Amino acid sequence: MKPSLLESPLSVVNVGVDAFNLSVTTHGGSVAQVDWQPPGNADPVLAWKLAQLVGDRQDPDATGSRIDRANALAVERVLAARPTLVDVALHARDVWPDMDRTLLHAGAPVAWPDMCGPMHGAMIGAVLYERWADSMAEAERMLAAGEIRFAQCHDYSAVGPMTGIISPSMPVLVIRNLTHGNTAYTNINEGIGKILRFGANSPEVLVRLKWFEDVLAPAMKKAVLLSGGIDLKAIQSQALLMGDEVHSRNVAATSLFFMQFAVPLSQCELPPGVAHEILKFIADTSQFFLNLSMASAKATMDAAHGIEYSSTVTAIARNGVTTAIRVSGLGRRWFEAPSGRPQGLYFPGFSEADANPDLGDSAITETAGLGGFSFAASPALTLLAGGSIAASMEYSRLMYEITDGRNPANSLPALDFAPAPVGIDVRKVIDTGIQPVVTTGIAHREAGVGQIGAGIVRVPMACFVKALEALAEQYPA
Amino acid sequence: MKPSLLESPLSVVNVGVDAFNLSVTTHGGSVAQVDWQPPGNADPVLAWKLAQLVGDRQDPDATGSRIDRANALAVERVLAARPTLVDVALHARDVWPDMDRTLLHAGAPVAWPDMCGPMHGAMIGAVLYERWADSMAEAERMLAAGEIRFAQCHDYSAVGPMTGIISPSMPVLVIRNLTHGNTAYTNINEGIGKILRFGANSPEVLVRLKWFEDVLAPAMKKAVLLSGGIDLKAIQSQALLMGDEVHSRNVAATSLFFMQFAVPLSQCELPPGVAHEILKFIADTSQFFLNLSMASAKATMDAAHGIEYSSTVTAIARNGVTTAIRVSGLGRRWFEAPSGRPQGLYFPGFSEADANPDLGDSAITETAGLGGFSFAASPALTLLAGGSIAASMEYSRLMYEITDGRNPANSLPALDFAPAPVGIDVRKVIDTGIQPVVTTGIAHREAGVGQIGAGIVRVPMACFVKALEALAEQYPA
Repeated sequence: MKPSLLESPLSVVNVGVDAFNLSVTTHGGSVAQVDWQPPGNADPVLAWKLAQLVGDRQDPDATGSRIDRANALAVERVLAARPTLVDVALHARDVWPDMDRTLLHAGAPVAWPDMCGPMHGAMIGAVLYERWADSMAEAERMLAAGEIRFAQCHDYSAVGPMTGIISPSMPVLVIRNLTHGNTAYTNINEGIGKILRFGANSPEVLVRLKWFEDVLAPAMKKAVLLSGGIDLKAIQSQALLMGDEVHSRNVAATSLFFMQFAVPLSQCELPPGVAHEILKFIADTSQFFLNLSMASAKATMDAAHGIEYSSTVTAIARNGVTTAIRVSGLGRRWFEAPSGRPQGLYFPGFSEADANPDLGDSAITETAGLGGFSFAASPALTLLAGGSIAASMEYSRLMYEITDGRNPANSLPALDFAPAPVGIDVRKVIDTGIQPVVTTGIAHREAGVGQIGAGIVRVPMACFVKALEALAEQYPA
Repeated sequence: MKPSLLESPLSVVNVGVDAFNLSVTTHGGSVAQVDWQPPGNADPVLAWKLAQLVGDRQDPDATGSRIDRANALAVERVLAARPTLVDVALHARDVWPDMDRTLLHAGAPVAWPDMCGPMHGAMIGAVLYERWADSMAEAERMLAAGEIRFAQCHDYSAVGPMTGIISPSMPVLVIRNLTHGNTAYTNINEGIGKILRFGANSPEVLVRLKWFEDVLAPAMKKAVLLSGGIDLKAIQSQALLMGDEVHSRNVAATSLFFMQFAVPLSQCELPPGVAHEILKFIADTSQFFLNLSMASAKATMDAAHGIEYSSTVTAIARNGVTTAIRVSGLGRRWFEAPSGRPQGLYFPGFSEADANPDLGDSAITETAGLGGFSFAASPALTLLAGGSIAASMEYSRLMYEITDGRNPANSLPALDFAPAPVGIDVRKVIDTGIQPVVTTGIAHREAGVGQIGAGIVRVPMACFVKALEALAEQYPA
């Protein structure tokens, strides 16, 4: 006769929530714990939506579902991309001849009355810079009256940090993905202090932009053409071994770029003093590489966009009001939710009450596996963000849970050179409840005050819930 | 009546070797283990010598013994030093007018017949470069016949990597310690491949040295003077946050130096093409900063040298045959022992059998708390040396056991930004049996083959035993 269950010592296999285990063990039983959580992070509605996706999870095919295969292709393209700085366009309108009176801005569309302080300030500054108006008041009137067209950087294959304003006369850096042939664009980093990207529009800001247009860009164009192209992926890979995560920290990447740029620049015929002015400006601008890192990520992720069935996130962008994501298999639609305020370290005299909601196209770096996804590469940034080394490791480790790929080109030294996680999967974010981590600068909510800190922000879960709904609708079981 | 020892359960306090604890605990007793090891790493002769040192250990004075106070002063000077590149001397003989037919070399004195292969090759190259002879055979004859005087870099306040040859016509970099006023010198890094410092002496090697003398040094001098001085300590501090330990890896330091140097260089009046040649040479030479890092360490440690009673090591230098140390309170005497061969990663086709014994003045960086003492800063180097991240942490952690100071300017990110250990104490090396760790390149034992690997070497214990004996003799109880 078999012993009855209650007469022999209890041997329990527990699946999921481990709250009951203690009472078993205190009464002499043993427990084998199986880590598991229900689909949709225990939300039955989300679990049902996940279950409705085409051939997913239930698909007995050993190579995975159609979504799995589409995402594998997206990751393959990300890993194969070779983003390279190949040229500098002297004016954005040279790239987009029909641009006319258009201002490109960061993030998803936002109407003039709804824009945040820095975006208002930067738009006014751009109108003055373009000489469409002679005064701030006139500029503001034109903007409010709809006399200036607004468009998104992302719809022009472009990205810009913070307000991300690109106007027709501004020069843009031209980054080609040599593997897939697509091109991305970005503006030039202005350094710190009074700068358009934080909404400042005083004469000194416009003078600097004019210097970009008249002096810096023509010289950069010569040097970049002479160089035969500067390999941005190689710089990013090296910089990850040198304490950058190439979003909020670009100290190493900027100095590596500086070396590769100064050598051809020193061969260019330039007016007296120009080489010196340019080298001094870049040497003083530790985030100079940020825009290049973003455009490198954009050129990479655009190659992974537009794959049918893919639930890979190909853009995260913030207009200062909402945070929005794009998904490879869902075309140009944005999936939006209100932006959070970053948590982090504020400069003396500022607090979270002064912070603008999360702003800028720079989170494109996270979609490419950099920034928060490579947080473990940047102990110095941990210090800036007020955390411990262990915490920075943990940020990167969590991101493995929501991604489909590992990028050997992005190696994380502190994790014994593990390849960084890449390829955010909408399904995995929903399933785990883990929100993507973004390392970011913190802007003051008023125009032109500038950066007031640096920290961490999470992409809102609502973006992913909306994206999941769209996936379930477009690719039903 | 008290219970007898053998009737009650055993409660043992064990001091030192823990081999007996197991037998106590297996019989139901409890053990409190006290970590302790006998003085002199259990060697009674060394323990006796340590006990003979003036007022040491037994000194009831709360501020420590005279040696402790002398070492505290040495560390204070190390932390306060401000090594700065202030000038470039176009020829070594401009600095030392009575240099005449002298060749400075790395390490302690060594006679011509005893020198290693690379040192022979480099000496011959220097004689040809100086045009003291027209052929290798004639150069070798002069060197063997004593027609050329040999002296040590260290006795000229100079340091040179590997063979470390400095001849009268070579330019030298001038590094001033702005706090203490002393000056250190070094030669210019030649890059990799066929180079004098590894004993190569072919025409291409001499052509490069001539280019240093005629082109690079005059331009560098202009740029350095225009810069007002380049702060080497600041570059080293930053580079430690960027994956360098600034001995065997100087990728970040070189790029930071490049930025600070290129800006003033671009303001100098130079013949056409010179700025480009120079920037290209430095950009292609990732160890360019090594010599500056060494001279920065030399300018720092010289300020801590010559303190009465101090047992602080102020130099570690290798001539390819012996490794030698100098001690602050013991004047110019070298304490020598045969050099070991580095353990590490060999380039394809080479093995330890091809390696020259440890060579060069570069271990001056370890005396200043860099290199092996800051190993934890450089995960990329761990990979090169074939170790794990945990091992690189351990190297740094061990060095805390044999040093008297902690340098807040040298922060180790992976150890939660702990200040790096600095100030090797002869007494502590003897007491713990822990040998200082040096990160180093590995030279082929034949002249001119060049670098064949990179790895780790330990400073021989015999150097410290001899230094202890000299301390006990000079500063008796």
